[in-house]
Amino acid sequence: MSDPVQLRIPGPTPLPETVREAGSRQMVNHRGPEFKELLGRVTTAMKKGFRTESEVLIITSSGTGALEAAVVNTLSPGDSVLSVNIGVFGDRFAKICRAYGADVTTLAVEHGKAADPSDVGAQLREMAADGKPAVAVLVTFNETSTGVTNPLEEIAQQIHHDAPDALILVDAVSGLGAIPLEMDAWGLDVVTTGSQKSWMVPPGLAMVALSPRAWAAVERSTMPRFYFDLKLHRDAMARGETPWTPAISVAFALDEGIKLIEAEGYPRIFARHAACGAAARAGLEALGIRLLADPDVASNTVTSAWLPDGVEWSALTKVCRARGLVLAGGQGQLTGKIFRVGHLGSVTTDDIVRCMEILEDALAELGLQIEPGASARAAAQAAANANDGATERKPVFATTA
Amino acid sequence: MSDPVQLRIPGPTPLPETVREAGSRQMVNHRGPEFKELLGRVTTAMKKGFRTESEVLIITSSGTGALEAAVVNTLSPGDSVLSVNIGVFGDRFAKICRAYGADVTTLAVEHGKAADPSDVGAQLREMAADGKPAVAVLVTFNETSTGVTNPLEEIAQQIHHDAPDALILVDAVSGLGAIPLEMDAWGLDVVTTGSQKSWMVPPGLAMVALSPRAWAAVERSTMPRFYFDLKLHRDAMARGETPWTPAISVAFALDEGIKLIEAEGYPRIFARHAACGAAARAGLEALGIRLLADPDVASNTVTSAWLPDGVEWSALTKVCRARGLVLAGGQGQLTGKIFRVGHLGSVTTDDIVRCMEILEDALAELGLQIEPGASARAAAQAAANANDGATERKPVFATTA
Repeated sequence: MSDPVQLRIPGPTPLPETVREAGSRQMVNHRGPEFKELLGRVTTAMKKGFRTESEVLIITSSGTGALEAAVVNTLSPGDSVLSVNIGVFGDRFAKICRAYGADVTTLAVEHGKAADPSDVGAQLREMAADGKPAVAVLVTFNETSTGVTNPLEEIAQQIHHDAPDALILVDAVSGLGAIPLEMDAWGLDVVTTGSQKSWMVPPGLAMVALSPRAWAAVERSTMPRFYFDLKLHRDAMARGETPWTPAISVAFALDEGIKLIEAEGYPRIFARHAACGAAARAGLEALGIRLLADPDVASNTVTSAWLPDGVEWSALTKVCRARGLVLAGGQGQLTGKIFRVGHLGSVTTDDIVRCMEILEDALAELGLQIEPGASARAAAQAAANANDGATERKPVFATTA
Repeated sequence: MSDPVQLRIPGPTPLPETVREAGSRQMVNHRGPEFKELLGRVTTAMKKGFRTESEVLIITSSGTGALEAAVVNTLSPGDSVLSVNIGVFGDRFAKICRAYGADVTTLAVEHGKAADPSDVGAQLREMAADGKPAVAVLVTFNETSTGVTNPLEEIAQQIHHDAPDALILVDAVSGLGAIPLEMDAWGLDVVTTGSQKSWMVPPGLAMVALSPRAWAAVERSTMPRFYFDLKLHRDAMARGETPWTPAISVAFALDEGIKLIEAEGYPRIFARHAACGAAARAGLEALGIRLLADPDVASNTVTSAWLPDGVEWSALTKVCRARGLVLAGGQGQLTGKIFRVGHLGSVTTDDIVRCMEILEDALAELGLQIEPGASARAAAQAAANANDGATERKPVFATTA
């Protein structure tokens, strides 16, 4: 491999140099003053990312652990739950609910499409009419397996309208911090994310915030829990600690990742991800590759595309890897059918242009007729257009500074 | 602080230089070939640490997560469980069982003492006579809160004798890899540890191994689980993966920590910890400080001592910190009564001698009458004696190489 590796998967994302350095710091006592300060700094900063006045708790786990925490702290066995399922991660959220005894109704959406808020509303009304009104609705913000971003604000509005008492539990793992999300303003009850996503940090920490309504639900919830017991986390946080020994080196890295985020500012970060998404979509289409996601709801953190006819995923990943490019394959039912380009966290439009250059070369080796340079040019043009149009686009939310 | 910080707590432990470097490596795809190789290498090496033919699974969590995994994968609500409780971590293991609906009987042991195998046997016979024979026994190998190492081999023998069907679930978090433990030869059913202990690595990964008998219990167990579902972990491991995104940087560090461990060899590692333990105990006693743990069962990874009369923990930690020494306080009922010196992982007898020098100085500042140099001399002498006697001590087990 002549180039350094381009890790273009939807997490873990490449680490900036200062984040890597921070991750190599010597250990400290996780119940001492240094860690207390760090935890205070990181969780305060995280509230700006979540756009919430609620406390953000930090758990040592993958994002899946945070999803489990969301479920087991707010629900009880037998609770009626609506799963808005647009892919593998929506499916996982529902599986967690079922594992703990919830009664899950699934609104399944075709892969590549977002959930239609009016379908969510209709399903909620139907559940109520059937005598089992939803206690909670599970929604994926950004579905990593299909590269689709749900219209979360509109879905939340619809839920508030049709099932005002239902909690809204959000898997925001691969979107929060890269795509605008407003926890408080949209009335989301539990929001989750993970360190290895937009935060530009190694995996190992997950973050979760609960609305006051969700904290009230915690008091009623009877699902069993211990490691993920968020009351224990909240109590420990009040002392500047975590209940169990945390992934300290990941926390050091997160502290540094947040510094980079605050220096850049969320509006610029969202615009950068939008430009990278546009570049990836344009570059792939210029290669004659069909995108999986509906253009209207295509994710700005990961782009999914159908494998070209006659191209096996195993062959594609091999020729790409030989050129230093690491892509992601399909998951679940899409395994062997699609591939995915991650553009999340520490990524620039130049990275996407370079990714397209490598992909062109790789696909040519696999025998596809490729017009040299067309994909990279299209990606660069889309990136430029996105950047030019930045001031005219739907305004991104202001940071609380 | 003139000295670099001496982190003398029972985990996280100081990181060797090469471990720190490994922890700063750039990310890779956790579902790609590099991570698959690493996972194979680390888990194969871990089997030698556990002394087992069973697979060692790696979970992204603290050690407490591994304890939860041990419980929820092998037990069912209502199961009768004996908790052999010699301190805070024994208590935590029992709390996990209760949180998931087990019927826990506690054999409480005075703090500072180990469990007497015959008491365990008597309790098991009593439970059987009461018509609720134990389905499992929870045992802490090395109780971090009191600095006591249980006679695990003898306890296991007694359990096999009096309750041959009971599973033996072992919290070996702070002992395994530093103090001899034989999972297979002693007939232990679930054994757990954590990266930040003897493995010399940052916290974030926990390891767990199940005997064939424990895997059979998994099939019967009905406690709910998802993140900690060990069948999902075992299935993923067969593909060279973890089911959820793992703490990759901690895994890089663990790979390096294991290289250091294999280069030193377990017999030498056990002898080093024994010498450090002897040095810590002798050094503290030379300061006129009373040790908490019974000498016969005092831990070789952490030494607990009563705070001298008139010395508050808050004052002691402050004067020690000012000199670059970080000690641990008491936990649970022992908060404010004891302090603890960790000597676990990357530690030498020289570190302990230096620790005693600082402690002497710190206690003198607090107004104690201290004979200058006595504690460090006693520590050095005990270390030398331990090293001299190494060949005559009860033989440590041979590594499988």
